[in-house]
Amino acid sequence: SSLPPMEGRSKFMDFPHVSAPHRSLMFDLLSAVENRLGTQLEPCALPPNVEYYQNQAGNARGSLYVRRGQSSSPVDFVLGSWLNCQLPTGGALNITSLSAYLKTSTDAPNFLFELIRNGPTSLVMILDLTPRKDLVMFPDYLKTFYEDTQLDSHRQALEKLPEAQPYFSSALYIRSVVSPTAIMLKIDAGGEDRLEEIIDSQLPTISKAVLEIWLDKCAYGEERGVDEADRAYLEKRDNVVKRKTIDIDLASNFPRLFGPEIAGRVIEVLREVYAV
Amino acid sequence: SSLPPMEGRSKFMDFPHVSAPHRSLMFDLLSAVENRLGTQLEPCALPPNVEYYQNQAGNARGSLYVRRGQSSSPVDFVLGSWLNCQLPTGGALNITSLSAYLKTSTDAPNFLFELIRNGPTSLVMILDLTPRKDLVMFPDYLKTFYEDTQLDSHRQALEKLPEAQPYFSSALYIRSVVSPTAIMLKIDAGGEDRLEEIIDSQLPTISKAVLEIWLDKCAYGEERGVDEADRAYLEKRDNVVKRKTIDIDLASNFPRLFGPEIAGRVIEVLREVYAV
Repeated sequence: SSLPPMEGRSKFMDFPHVSAPHRSLMFDLLSAVENRLGTQLEPCALPPNVEYYQNQAGNARGSLYVRRGQSSSPVDFVLGSWLNCQLPTGGALNITSLSAYLKTSTDAPNFLFELIRNGPTSLVMILDLTPRKDLVMFPDYLKTFYEDTQLDSHRQALEKLPEAQPYFSSALYIRSVVSPTAIMLKIDAGGEDRLEEIIDSQLPTISKAVLEIWLDKCAYGEERGVDEADRAYLEKRDNVVKRKTIDIDLASNFPRLFGPEIAGRVIEVLREVYAV
Repeated sequence: SSLPPMEGRSKFMDFPHVSAPHRSLMFDLLSAVENRLGTQLEPCALPPNVEYYQNQAGNARGSLYVRRGQSSSPVDFVLGSWLNCQLPTGGALNITSLSAYLKTSTDAPNFLFELIRNGPTSLVMILDLTPRKDLVMFPDYLKTFYEDTQLDSHRQALEKLPEAQPYFSSALYIRSVVSPTAIMLKIDAGGEDRLEEIIDSQLPTISKAVLEIWLDKCAYGEERGVDEADRAYLEKRDNVVKRKTIDIDLASNFPRLFGPEIAGRVIEVLREVYAV
């Protein structure tokens, strides 16, 4: 590709294919992460053809954005992505996501946010602090990160929207990975305007509140006292999650959408970032 | 108490305070378990004042039923219970449950079924094969018991009922304990007749189908090859679940409903059965 790196980067931040409220929500969340973590994060240093890629037919394109944590930071990396795909029906599928993974120096949860716009009036939202330990075995962990933080209040607030329904991922593994307070919603609005209004007025407050909890209690939380055995367990569990996430999210769809070469390139970079 | 043991036992099986379809659903499920497991199960040998108990005011009563597995059986115990409680508003709360726990000779899931009738037109249903391992760490376990068995199809079928909504337990721990295919539904029917019709026509087929999966793949499943380290892990995890379940289900409500003496007696027997 002849794109200079900075142009690739600006393409990610532009979220060029989504509506204004959707773009501004993603931009604000990413900015909140970057402002708060600041110099803990290295600049994005992906190859330009992974920061931005598109298929030969020109009907699917995507962008990746990765900022690794510096060696002194508990943050392993922050990962943004978007995907735009023209549908045979004439519509478009837009997926935007922002996640943040911590190192094994802490066992605190990771951050996960994803919006899947699969039609003009329909949106799936996933927002969670994903646990890094078995909550059944470690009720104190559940108490610290999920009960004491009142995380469920945000899920309950959104659930009250008449247009919102609980969303069940078809992948049982994804349902297993998320916490019991995960916001997994399908929003079916009567019209496109109403959906934009919900994205504009309802989602930002709650998304930012959950992100703030992650920043305060996880990225900047109290020392968790992870010993060597804990660290080995965390590394093993984190790695299973990362491998399964790549398999479920990408390995099946990406080659179909982008062809084997581009898909292989993007997945290889992700495996490097995930270190699996 | 002057009740002879057999009279206490018949009180459990009678489910005397619930509607005919509710009673017949519970009776049929318990019969299916008992017929299939047959002589693997010891007779119920609870003290009569735990098989049936009521408070001094006479507005709350309950019954427990426990059949332990014989030493050669993978079944640890089958546990039935019902609770009836007159509400100050004039209505009644009825909870009936049936669960089955396996020994650590297998890591296969346990069975859990509970109906909470908290008003004439309202019912909460919980039906699950509760995992005994961290599904995130052990994707093969998820595949064997939850994907390959198509358990989610039963949840999907019930979810289609217009009167049914996903139910979120206020206890995050309970949400953590259940599987991603757990049927946790709140059914709000327009009228009492319609709710009885749903209990009569929709719930039995699905409840029995899930129970059959448990009997075929868990109680009578393939040898799971649990080694000593697995067994130690299972025992630890099972015990955390059992202790938390008693705390959440009983320790807070029972003393209030039945007074300290009866509550203490029932909880002590449950701790004996659970061995925690």
